[in-house]
Amino acid sequence: MSIPYRIYLDEEQIPKKYYNIRADMPEQHDPLLNPTTDQPATLEDLKPVFCDELAKQELDTTTRYFDIPKPVQEFYKMFRPSPLIRAYNLEKALGTPAKIYYKFEGNNTSGSHKLNSAAAQVHYAKEQGLTSLTTETGAGQWGTALSMACAFYNLDLTVYMVRGSAEQKPYRKSVIETFGADIIPSPSNTTAVGRSILKEHPDTGGSLGCAISEAVETAVNTPNCRYVLGSVLNQVLLHQSIIGLESKAAMDSIDEYPDVVIGCAGGGSNLGGLIAPYMQDKLKERSDVRIVAVEPVSCPSLTRGRYVYDFCDTGKITPLARMYTLGSQFMPSADHAGGLRYHGMSPILSKLYHDGYMEAVSVQQTKVFEAAVLFAKHETILPAPESAHAIRTAIDEAMECKKTGEEKTILFGLTGTGYFDMQAYSSYLAGKMTDYIPSDSDLEAGFNQLPNVESIKSSSSTSVHSMT
Amino acid sequence: MSIPYRIYLDEEQIPKKYYNIRADMPEQHDPLLNPTTDQPATLEDLKPVFCDELAKQELDTTTRYFDIPKPVQEFYKMFRPSPLIRAYNLEKALGTPAKIYYKFEGNNTSGSHKLNSAAAQVHYAKEQGLTSLTTETGAGQWGTALSMACAFYNLDLTVYMVRGSAEQKPYRKSVIETFGADIIPSPSNTTAVGRSILKEHPDTGGSLGCAISEAVETAVNTPNCRYVLGSVLNQVLLHQSIIGLESKAAMDSIDEYPDVVIGCAGGGSNLGGLIAPYMQDKLKERSDVRIVAVEPVSCPSLTRGRYVYDFCDTGKITPLARMYTLGSQFMPSADHAGGLRYHGMSPILSKLYHDGYMEAVSVQQTKVFEAAVLFAKHETILPAPESAHAIRTAIDEAMECKKTGEEKTILFGLTGTGYFDMQAYSSYLAGKMTDYIPSDSDLEAGFNQLPNVESIKSSSSTSVHSMT
Repeated sequence: MSIPYRIYLDEEQIPKKYYNIRADMPEQHDPLLNPTTDQPATLEDLKPVFCDELAKQELDTTTRYFDIPKPVQEFYKMFRPSPLIRAYNLEKALGTPAKIYYKFEGNNTSGSHKLNSAAAQVHYAKEQGLTSLTTETGAGQWGTALSMACAFYNLDLTVYMVRGSAEQKPYRKSVIETFGADIIPSPSNTTAVGRSILKEHPDTGGSLGCAISEAVETAVNTPNCRYVLGSVLNQVLLHQSIIGLESKAAMDSIDEYPDVVIGCAGGGSNLGGLIAPYMQDKLKERSDVRIVAVEPVSCPSLTRGRYVYDFCDTGKITPLARMYTLGSQFMPSADHAGGLRYHGMSPILSKLYHDGYMEAVSVQQTKVFEAAVLFAKHETILPAPESAHAIRTAIDEAMECKKTGEEKTILFGLTGTGYFDMQAYSSYLAGKMTDYIPSDSDLEAGFNQLPNVESIKSSSSTSVHSMT
Repeated sequence: MSIPYRIYLDEEQIPKKYYNIRADMPEQHDPLLNPTTDQPATLEDLKPVFCDELAKQELDTTTRYFDIPKPVQEFYKMFRPSPLIRAYNLEKALGTPAKIYYKFEGNNTSGSHKLNSAAAQVHYAKEQGLTSLTTETGAGQWGTALSMACAFYNLDLTVYMVRGSAEQKPYRKSVIETFGADIIPSPSNTTAVGRSILKEHPDTGGSLGCAISEAVETAVNTPNCRYVLGSVLNQVLLHQSIIGLESKAAMDSIDEYPDVVIGCAGGGSNLGGLIAPYMQDKLKERSDVRIVAVEPVSCPSLTRGRYVYDFCDTGKITPLARMYTLGSQFMPSADHAGGLRYHGMSPILSKLYHDGYMEAVSVQQTKVFEAAVLFAKHETILPAPESAHAIRTAIDEAMECKKTGEEKTILFGLTGTGYFDMQAYSSYLAGKMTDYIPSDSDLEAGFNQLPNVESIKSSSSTSVHSMT
């Protein structure tokens, strides 16, 4: 039997456990540090900010599998399993001998994979008896996903949305409001950190780091409230492992195994989830699959950042994480469309990259939209700009196969749909989109504001990959 | 084994034939009339406007099944089968003993079921060697669907988009442009009929009937070009039968059969497709399933229209069809959000309704959006306003079951998603949405302009249902 276009697992094949990649990492990433003491953050340090269960997951380096709570399993059944799709028509259009597969996480109303972690996080919050949550959102997928989960579990939610995105995507805001959440463009006057940033940069379009600061400040000052985050954190990668586990089960069902796995990388939630079981194979030396992170040239944390301790937010109120970073004060150019605008990168992925288990490339957004339009015309799915970064690199890989004749099996993550990104598409179609490539001195300005962490300074270093 | 939330057929179970309900109708609807002769339209009359194969399908009353061309079958595999979903969480929220299922056609980039017919129509156009097509679009789903199919088959496309919709949904326009089609707000200066309408009503928001006139005029004046339509026509209902056939196969697979099938009705494309196999059962007296059409109170063609011959377009250049109509000059109030704004109704459905095989109800749009928001919060899918008409009535049926204790099985069609309708959602959430109910004299004005068709006048009559 030939391989179908869309491979759907049965409902009972949806994974019932999350996979914690840290249990298989030969070396752990450096610990989060409490910014007031420069000492490793403890469970007690994290509890005022995060739900208890999520704080535990954040620090757990040994539990290989976590049971997915039953109510979360039920929630997943409303939108999972997501299809693994064979890109027959894209292959044909490219004339490549490569086989291209993509795991499509966009067929839910949040328009992305973010709902996977939102469902889990809101469940744990509800279990703990919390009554409200705060978060930030950039491109808007995470805010939408969380508003959906909060509507379902009946929890109040305040979303700080990066102001530039809020202005560019008024309808994304409306969707979040439809699900009953409050949405506040960030920076705002509702927090001390917001007021301070507005004072210094009254016209700023905001940044994810800044929105995080505001959401955390509000959470710790509100009774029975916690902050939740849609990327970067270990807990999020844990929940998103469902993407990779499902992808692998679907590929197993058709006797396929990828030669290369490609994912877009902003904070790392999709990439970390998609690659999880393949990275496990690689760490256990069962496979030499290539794993490729794709990021925008305009926000190149892996390819041009430094592997050092830094704040996770612009307001410098979160714990310090050792990660690839452009500096917490870095804000991508206003020309940059869509998400993937975070200054740092998941500590887990940063460590794996630093240790050579993963590659990274950066791509220009005009090339990304070129790939997005080509993909849409042949595969009939309008991709999110973020996802289109992975499409760009998958196409580049497939075209390389066309040159060499190699019949590679390519798997990439199609994280979401672009229905709320039409302003960016219009700008591209009108030939008005530009590519911003930060100069070395632009980046230096960000690096100059990195925190001085004496206790771990000696172990920090510039990335060996930073020049690739 | 319990019934899963989402029932997906296997790829090889996607129907390979369309079902033509006319082959089983005890009486045929009255024939289309050539407006210049008042005589039944012949194949030769239709060929200048429609592709040859589609013109044939339009007139065929005896062929029960049409093979779906192989390339169209392949195209379908990119987005079909669509899921049949058990609304477990909506049932729970309502506390109803009813079982609610919905066939979800919105998980493709057109955001609706319209892609089913677009794929077929563009295939036939390509086979015939045509180089371009024209069409109209109201809410935008049809225009998007057709632009997707034209991009795939590499045919030029001009879309006349109802001006009010184009202004309310600028991003819908961008999506259509992303797939390479030209889009022109209607009425426009590009056609004689458009110029004439603009002269009389310079500020009009346009109507579907008017956009049809413009698209037809352009098609017949352009070499190697034809007009295609996304609803109303018999050929469209034929293609859309895939919705019903797939729904029935999925319900069969879990040993279910609906007591009531509910679909929203504008021109009838979704409703006619969804109900096709159930209507067959009913016509053959194998089932007494109830079939319910839901329309807006602001555009009540079935519930308050007349069953007479009328033009299919505002410009009066198309054939005359006997159907439930508000008069081809009827334009729904500007307050009316979304689609379902056509003045008439599929001749097939009109006949079935007239002969008592089908019920019809009309619903207010504020009640429709109330249902849409409730549905979104519990089922995690943001419905299109059009689809939410069916949700409203399904909820009403389920609540009736709650009163009576009946464990009915309800099936409704969720035709699409509402990502491009956020302006309407925002208006609803802000309490600014109003309900427009046309007065009898409003409707009388439309009826007064009905054509005087001497040859068939005696057989036309006011609907026996028009007062229900």
